[in-house]
Amino acid sequence: MHSKNNKLNSPYIITQESAQYYECSYCCDHAIVLVCGSERFFITDGRYSAEARASVKSGVEVIECQDLDEALGQIIQKQKISSLIFDSLHISVARFSKMTTLLSDVALIPKANFHQELRIVKTEEEIEKIRISQMLNREAFVRFGKFLEQSIGKNERELQFLSKGFLTQNGQYDLSFEPIFAINENGAKPHALPMQESILKRGDFVLFDAGIKYKHYCSDQTRCAFFDDEIALMEIQQGKNERFQKIYDIVREAKDYAIENLQEGMSGREIDALARGVIEKRGYGKFFMHSTGHGIGLDIHELPRIGPRSEEIIQEGMVFSVEPGIYLDGEIGVRLEDLVVIRNGRAEIL
Amino acid sequence: MHSKNNKLNSPYIITQESAQYYECSYCCDHAIVLVCGSERFFITDGRYSAEARASVKSGVEVIECQDLDEALGQIIQKQKISSLIFDSLHISVARFSKMTTLLSDVALIPKANFHQELRIVKTEEEIEKIRISQMLNREAFVRFGKFLEQSIGKNERELQFLSKGFLTQNGQYDLSFEPIFAINENGAKPHALPMQESILKRGDFVLFDAGIKYKHYCSDQTRCAFFDDEIALMEIQQGKNERFQKIYDIVREAKDYAIENLQEGMSGREIDALARGVIEKRGYGKFFMHSTGHGIGLDIHELPRIGPRSEEIIQEGMVFSVEPGIYLDGEIGVRLEDLVVIRNGRAEIL
Repeated sequence: MHSKNNKLNSPYIITQESAQYYECSYCCDHAIVLVCGSERFFITDGRYSAEARASVKSGVEVIECQDLDEALGQIIQKQKISSLIFDSLHISVARFSKMTTLLSDVALIPKANFHQELRIVKTEEEIEKIRISQMLNREAFVRFGKFLEQSIGKNERELQFLSKGFLTQNGQYDLSFEPIFAINENGAKPHALPMQESILKRGDFVLFDAGIKYKHYCSDQTRCAFFDDEIALMEIQQGKNERFQKIYDIVREAKDYAIENLQEGMSGREIDALARGVIEKRGYGKFFMHSTGHGIGLDIHELPRIGPRSEEIIQEGMVFSVEPGIYLDGEIGVRLEDLVVIRNGRAEIL
Repeated sequence: MHSKNNKLNSPYIITQESAQYYECSYCCDHAIVLVCGSERFFITDGRYSAEARASVKSGVEVIECQDLDEALGQIIQKQKISSLIFDSLHISVARFSKMTTLLSDVALIPKANFHQELRIVKTEEEIEKIRISQMLNREAFVRFGKFLEQSIGKNERELQFLSKGFLTQNGQYDLSFEPIFAINENGAKPHALPMQESILKRGDFVLFDAGIKYKHYCSDQTRCAFFDDEIALMEIQQGKNERFQKIYDIVREAKDYAIENLQEGMSGREIDALARGVIEKRGYGKFFMHSTGHGIGLDIHELPRIGPRSEEIIQEGMVFSVEPGIYLDGEIGVRLEDLVVIRNGRAEIL
């Protein structure tokens, strides 16, 4: 059940690894994939071709070459392709200029982000992988929380680094992005980079935003915790600081309200308004400066966008984050994030 | 003392973080820097502008905006700039198309890699940072080697992950790239990704290629080691496997010969031939399938290229790696890598 704008009338090329993997079940950092009807060509060099041949799904032909663009040109000529879609966000001016020379009689059609549109609705198999990814991620949060209780005196940089051992299970899984670990007012910084000067102590409030990859599919979760007697990186929080508790409860209400009330057929903008409405009603609207969520899959940020300007219509099988926040400069940052999939028209938490 | 091709006659823009840092002493993942004679403009959005203002060197004006391209257009108009150099490898077709609309009366001049050309000769201050970076890196190799001795039974993925704790000192430094850790025949794979199935045991031969960043400057070193009684990730190696020892000694001879004999004024191709010549003379030429080295600085791979097709002329103050290797498929991979700087016409190891 793909949306209408997912139909492409021309062959297309992709270079991003996530899109390569989606089309071919294999990806590497130096390849072009040409999709032409049901035929797929994985064009790469001698470093990757043997592994590619062993890994690609059936129906994909691996082409080994020295120059990817020249090899692409030859296949296009052989296949008598007259027009070709490419992602204008991911092709450089230098490559485009080479392509126009090599493919002088082919119409090159720029289409920003077309491959994310193509995979905006997830299959059951994809949803299952994201579910397992998030389950492993959630378990890592619990173990990392326990570790934090014994980590008084360690700084943010060290703790951010050590969190990766819990998340990846010492390298068994990849990260879906560099985790964010912030203490107290550092969580209010719009791009919280971990700081050596910020030391964990009892009474602190911590924010942790992290995800891993399971069979290439990303997870993503944010939890906050009061460190009074213990730290539990889970949703239920009861802290001694009443002001922080109040902010925390508003953010949690905003997240839960959006998840409970969002529906298939709403736009990203309408879902954003559900979460934002709760925070605005409580008087903290101007302290929630980012979008409510983003699609997730092979990439950590995919379509649909769940923000104030998003007109994308939410459909069955889409997977995205719901992550409202309140950021009080110099004081505290609170954000809570879950992933949801649309099932029978409503959000189901993954 | 910059080379002739480093003179730029027009204002230029850059987007890559390493180039931003070089020009402004600050960088972030969403900025355009415009350099116009001695004036520099750091164009970014509200997430970074406060930190940028606090961090940029004197003479850099920080411009906060919503849309980077539109802000750039306004400055260019105000400065009456009529031609603008950009890096065609780092500007996408989508951004270029927006720029041509916004800057309709400005000549846009594509110049691939121009900023790496600009910084191909390092200052004393830069050389000192790379020296310290490599010193810290070298120390991490020694500590990681000791750890490997106690790691029998651990797999490559786990050991590759754990190496990062030694390299970064638990997050104190950033990595300059994902370290490569390979056991026996896995070191012969052209892109050795760590494998869960490959378990460390006595009698193994290991390859470790890693680097960190010190004040933004990269280091890079490769060492191999026999794991007979102990593991020392250092250059002097005496193993029980005579065939591996022979290959090891050839690679070491190739590296040392190139470093001792390379000179200012040679081309990258001539330096490559020094190392390659040794390996070819011993009959292993076809098992050395990559270039001998690469420049290094703010980026892990910079100019000059030290390879069979490189015509770049090596000058005083250039810093690059010398890293010959021999790769026997299914058996073993050996590579040894040092960084050198050109001083008084010759190579000095960093």
